[in-house]
Amino acid sequence: MRIVVLAGGIGGARFLRGLKAAAPEAEITVIGNTGDDIHLFGLKVCPDLDTVMYTLGGGIHEEQGWGRADETFVVKEELAAYGVGPEWFGLGDRDFATHIVRTQMIGAGYPLSAVTEALCARWQPGVRLIPMSDDRVETHVVIDAPDDGGRKAVHFQEYWVRLHASVPAHAILPVGAEQAKPAPGVLEAIGEADVILFPPSNPVVSIGTILAVPGIREAIADAGVPVVGLSPIVGDAPVRGMADKVLAAVGVEATAAAVAEHYGSGLLDGWLVDTVDAAAVERVESAGIRCRAVPLLMSDVDAAAQMARTALELARETAS
Amino acid sequence: MRIVVLAGGIGGARFLRGLKAAAPEAEITVIGNTGDDIHLFGLKVCPDLDTVMYTLGGGIHEEQGWGRADETFVVKEELAAYGVGPEWFGLGDRDFATHIVRTQMIGAGYPLSAVTEALCARWQPGVRLIPMSDDRVETHVVIDAPDDGGRKAVHFQEYWVRLHASVPAHAILPVGAEQAKPAPGVLEAIGEADVILFPPSNPVVSIGTILAVPGIREAIADAGVPVVGLSPIVGDAPVRGMADKVLAAVGVEATAAAVAEHYGSGLLDGWLVDTVDAAAVERVESAGIRCRAVPLLMSDVDAAAQMARTALELARETAS
Repeated sequence: MRIVVLAGGIGGARFLRGLKAAAPEAEITVIGNTGDDIHLFGLKVCPDLDTVMYTLGGGIHEEQGWGRADETFVVKEELAAYGVGPEWFGLGDRDFATHIVRTQMIGAGYPLSAVTEALCARWQPGVRLIPMSDDRVETHVVIDAPDDGGRKAVHFQEYWVRLHASVPAHAILPVGAEQAKPAPGVLEAIGEADVILFPPSNPVVSIGTILAVPGIREAIADAGVPVVGLSPIVGDAPVRGMADKVLAAVGVEATAAAVAEHYGSGLLDGWLVDTVDAAAVERVESAGIRCRAVPLLMSDVDAAAQMARTALELARETAS
Repeated sequence: MRIVVLAGGIGGARFLRGLKAAAPEAEITVIGNTGDDIHLFGLKVCPDLDTVMYTLGGGIHEEQGWGRADETFVVKEELAAYGVGPEWFGLGDRDFATHIVRTQMIGAGYPLSAVTEALCARWQPGVRLIPMSDDRVETHVVIDAPDDGGRKAVHFQEYWVRLHASVPAHAILPVGAEQAKPAPGVLEAIGEADVILFPPSNPVVSIGTILAVPGIREAIADAGVPVVGLSPIVGDAPVRGMADKVLAAVGVEATAAAVAEHYGSGLLDGWLVDTVDAAAVERVESAGIRCRAVPLLMSDVDAAAQMARTALELARETAS
């Protein structure tokens, strides 16, 4: 079975770990979000790709959900001693090495997809991890600029990590997406997939950004195979992070049903909501998307594997 | 008093520490060798500038003579885990931060001289440290290439650090020197100097490379102020490192007298040799260079300060 998964960071990575356990024989291709990528200290940092790679490769900081286990922060301390920031982005020494290798390879002319493959040669994530695009796409968030009475766009990481999404987001701009091309292998994987899954990743800044790369949404809609998603909203609140803030920016209420409608039946065939949101099933199904309510908290790998099994079952149902 | 010092790495840095102690009121400008600079992991590494900066700024690994005190090597371990080398060049985590800041600033368009000034804002070395040139000059060493029966040029660091200068050096090539311009401030400092000193740095790959930048040798020769050097060879062997190997490559014997003659009376007014080389005084003076034999081992800051005092005394003598 060939499975394609669109993934952001923590939620996508943990779901993928469950999926590997649930379908050990499957050939899994992960299309990773690169809209969160940022240049820090002159180095190219790809938070979502790295979270997937570290999680599936056994190097993740388990409790934190991102970054490396057994991490140290000597380089960051030294950069601060030079007065060089930003200090709000937590790059550890082990993590720095990844960004140094990536930046060196990109400087040598390799596209991000080739670099990601090279990094994965070490981590052996057990999936094929492809960035959504080799072109630069950068998610910017429009926020108030009180000092001059207007608005300004800041990098997603500045909004998310530095500001903790604590100010209103007026718009989410995937800068560069319109000109971006899917990375080599992305459309081919979608075209050859038996099933396509949307993990409980952020529907706006993770999966939404991947879908904003011209050709990807169309390829999924036209693939003719079941497309099943899992709600990142449980009980009207995001399971992790601050997805409600960016949903508001695109005019979508932070409920399991509204997110399904936002994707729409043109894209989604099936949708899993949490048992606490069982009342949403009817609304989602009336939008033409088959829906089931099951536990959606990835408290451990077994729980994530059970979610993956249910998603695959729902996919089979929608295909029949 | 304005003193200009041409400096390589360890020998230059330790001499400068002594000079600061010997002449606390002097305004010292250091013209640093950048021929040892190397790009590693996509980062620009300037070993000699950093050794001077760390030594005078209190951050040096004292016993080792280069690199940072209290150093850790997490980044390097991780790079090795990615299979990315070279593993023979010892970059620690603290040191990496310096190279990251430097590379980021150069990428942003700052010349190396401005970057060096910015890094020194943290280290406060108590001297003005200027790279010999903002242009790329890279010392290559011609060695045998047994596999194809010919010869090849390798980067100085590969010859020095990886090969430990254990193979014959047939030539030393300061690649790019002919096209290089002295960095802003270099010729001005020489023109305004009251005395110019050559510390016991490598006469070929450190001071020789600085002198290879067009305009610098001429400015020193024409400055009309005393130029005094200290022999890096004591008892027919280099005090540190493997200077004898590269001296052979330029056809100069590894003796205190031969190095003085190599610089020549057109450049040097005074030369200090170690007491064990007292027999060389006559030969050096017959070459038109005033010479004195004094202890030249920089066993501690006091010893280096005494050497600096003697060098300044000899400078006064040659001027009278």
